Amino acid sequence: MKFFQNVKAKLLPLAAVSVLTAGIFTGIEFQQAEKADAKKQDKNEIRNVIVMIGDGMGTPYINAYRSLKNNGKTPNDMKLTEFDPNLTGMMMTYPDDPDYNITDSAAAGTALSTGVKTYNNAIGVNKNKKRVKSVLEEAKEQGKSTGLVATSEINHATPAAYGAHNESRKNMNQIANSYFDDKINGKQKIDVLLGGGKTYFNRKDRNLTEEFKKTGYSYVTTKRELKKDKNKQLLGLFADGGLAKALDRDSQTPSLEDMTSSAIDRLNQNKKGFFLMVEGSQIDWAAHENDVVGAMSEVKDFEKAYKAAIQFAKKDKHTLVIATADHTTGGFTIGANGEKNWHAKPILAAKRTPEFMAKKIAEGKPAKDVLTRYTDLTFTAEEIKTVEAAAQADQDKGAYKSITKLFNTRSNSGWTSTDHTGEEVPVYAYGPGKEKFAGLINNTDQAKKIFKILKTGK
Amino acid sequence: MKFFQNVKAKLLPLAAVSVLTAGIFTGIEFQQAEKADAKKQDKNEIRNVIVMIGDGMGTPYINAYRSLKNNGKTPNDMKLTEFDPNLTGMMMTYPDDPDYNITDSAAAGTALSTGVKTYNNAIGVNKNKKRVKSVLEEAKEQGKSTGLVATSEINHATPAAYGAHNESRKNMNQIANSYFDDKINGKQKIDVLLGGGKTYFNRKDRNLTEEFKKTGYSYVTTKRELKKDKNKQLLGLFADGGLAKALDRDSQTPSLEDMTSSAIDRLNQNKKGFFLMVEGSQIDWAAHENDVVGAMSEVKDFEKAYKAAIQFAKKDKHTLVIATADHTTGGFTIGANGEKNWHAKPILAAKRTPEFMAKKIAEGKPAKDVLTRYTDLTFTAEEIKTVEAAAQADQDKGAYKSITKLFNTRSNSGWTSTDHTGEEVPVYAYGPGKEKFAGLINNTDQAKKIFKILKTGK
Repeated sequence: MKFFQNVKAKLLPLAAVSVLTAGIFTGIEFQQAEKADAKKQDKNEIRNVIVMIGDGMGTPYINAYRSLKNNGKTPNDMKLTEFDPNLTGMMMTYPDDPDYNITDSAAAGTALSTGVKTYNNAIGVNKNKKRVKSVLEEAKEQGKSTGLVATSEINHATPAAYGAHNESRKNMNQIANSYFDDKINGKQKIDVLLGGGKTYFNRKDRNLTEEFKKTGYSYVTTKRELKKDKNKQLLGLFADGGLAKALDRDSQTPSLEDMTSSAIDRLNQNKKGFFLMVEGSQIDWAAHENDVVGAMSEVKDFEKAYKAAIQFAKKDKHTLVIATADHTTGGFTIGANGEKNWHAKPILAAKRTPEFMAKKIAEGKPAKDVLTRYTDLTFTAEEIKTVEAAAQADQDKGAYKSITKLFNTRSNSGWTSTDHTGEEVPVYAYGPGKEKFAGLINNTDQAKKIFKILKTGK
Repeated sequence: MKFFQNVKAKLLPLAAVSVLTAGIFTGIEFQQAEKADAKKQDKNEIRNVIVMIGDGMGTPYINAYRSLKNNGKTPNDMKLTEFDPNLTGMMMTYPDDPDYNITDSAAAGTALSTGVKTYNNAIGVNKNKKRVKSVLEEAKEQGKSTGLVATSEINHATPAAYGAHNESRKNMNQIANSYFDDKINGKQKIDVLLGGGKTYFNRKDRNLTEEFKKTGYSYVTTKRELKKDKNKQLLGLFADGGLAKALDRDSQTPSLEDMTSSAIDRLNQNKKGFFLMVEGSQIDWAAHENDVVGAMSEVKDFEKAYKAAIQFAKKDKHTLVIATADHTTGGFTIGANGEKNWHAKPILAAKRTPEFMAKKIAEGKPAKDVLTRYTDLTFTAEEIKTVEAAAQADQDKGAYKSITKLFNTRSNSGWTSTDHTGEEVPVYAYGPGKEKFAGLINNTDQAKKIFKILKTGK
């Protein structure tokens, strides 16, 4: 309306005095406005799309993490998470599966990447097991650079749904193969691959890391190497399986933020733009174990990566960042056991995850020493005895389950399942086009909107 | 931009031929546009505000209810709830209480009605127990009509937070008194009061129904009386305590929709507009009992009332309808027990609530007959025995708990608590001004925005 007011202010007094001038002047203004309009459109062009998926990160995880950021207090001016200001709506996650109405990460990833609902376990294929194009592939077809970043194996369900097609997520060797074998217009499909999963890339039957290197990719396995390398095409594998959880990582394992920033730096060298999918993979893994400490460690790691992406987008102005979850996990709730309190302190007191502590106990360290060393909490003799007994009864998972339970009891964290649950998940959008993701959407809508953006730039 | 294009289309060809005509013509168009603009502003005036609160109705309740609407199926074109298309964001619900970081309905209601966070149990008072003005009171000050509708006692926590001030929700007689005693500019504060709670209004020490009648209010106690009465001011009390749950109601108990429509009809006679708060009170009550059948019955009742409000708003065009929850309850999750399924069928098979069935058993009816008569399910001898044993062991709640558990097991409904939990809740806004409620807001923001709307009409 501002332009219109300007015209009016200038035109009306002139109309009586010199209609000729007024007429011509208006014509010029229109042309100027047209140019300004075209420039504005250009200004809003969406060149880059970053999709960030907190695996299993339903509403309660954001809620709990916000509480941690406020030390469990509830001030009127609650400190928000990096996600919160960008909340645009929520997303339904159900699959199209004859046997299940709650999704797994493969079906959810495929819905998010291709716009097609499918059966659980499906990687980039529809319910008839036919390949369906992913937004990553569309981006590559458009001449953009592409990347996948995850804290799981990089060929795990969610990244696989963007970068491969397979009737089952379990065929992880085949999925790793297709990351190399699949070409688009004769070119490698995925320019940057960062995550875990060495065992799937260095195999007896095939050495994919060597194959990638031969085509010009760098291959890195430590944070130092990652930071040093400047190649546009890069395979980085930082663990045999998934990366250690953020709270447990050594100095040579990159954070999700390290990997995300490194990916953006490389991909952004393409003037045509890029598509990047970043997954905070292990929120879900911790949640399957009903491990609130592990889950919060991973939300924090994911939030830092998100912040880095937003900072890039803020400067770049042509980048759309969408963060969401593929589903929620564990039936996690803030508060439990009939009490109106959820306690952040016990969780903040953990210096390592229960998984890490359990491993130390399995290595023969006394439970008391382990719990004392890796937390700021005091445990009763009975609590320690419980952990010891659990470790003895079930050498594989006993201590982990038992320590996890201690944190749940102390924090009043509730869980209803060791699997996914069906609640819709929050959607956060930032940058040009963010309004397209407002309200209640379906997971398939996300892909459909991104396809359109990749094709039209808006 | 459409107007601008029209001007351009008309002006440019003319400019060369007859600049004089073009100049004058443009001036007229500007004036027309100005008028259209003023009309548009008027068109967007918000005259009425309807706040609808599903007590305890967190995201999982909407999710589960949507699943019921689709018979538990997951079609690609999932049938949505009436709420879904109006989702604008989510709301944080935490209180300002030294002892609790999860809210009760009183503190949440007070935050929603006054814009002030306070301690649990507080009714329209801040944490220093000082009265704070509610949006209902602001509306009355502005000359609007006001109403409260609930399926609980009408002097229960949530409606009380809008219509009274008391240091404790437990002082229900005092709260009922203030509905009558409090005046604004010499006038009754609340024009329409519809819900339950006869016992608090017809007391030995005071007969409030008579007092209301003396000032010109109608007093009705049945659906028929409600429909027949045309008075602008009305007290309707349809039960001694809370109304029966929707699934169990007799023909003379109005639905929440009946009460809502009846309230709107009366309040809408005021040309200055109205403020109405409608609560689906017993979603929360059922949730405290971990009773998924009861909760779904109440969400359905609430949805019908919401639909009626939206239909009114759609015609009226000057009505803003905001629906939300004050908190979520029970730690309810869609799916549980490590399974990727939530089953709608067992819930749809219930013809009465577990509460109703338990009452029949308590009256001496055999458990088998009751379960067979009031559900479309088949129960094993063992299941029936379990219910019988529970009924004997705990005459008060045994059968209720036991039947509830049957439905939870069959549907895979998960629960972590018999109290509230702290997750943020969805916000649905419809009508002019709806964009103000987008994104993540605090419960206090809602009142602040409504205060501004009531004062300025926008």
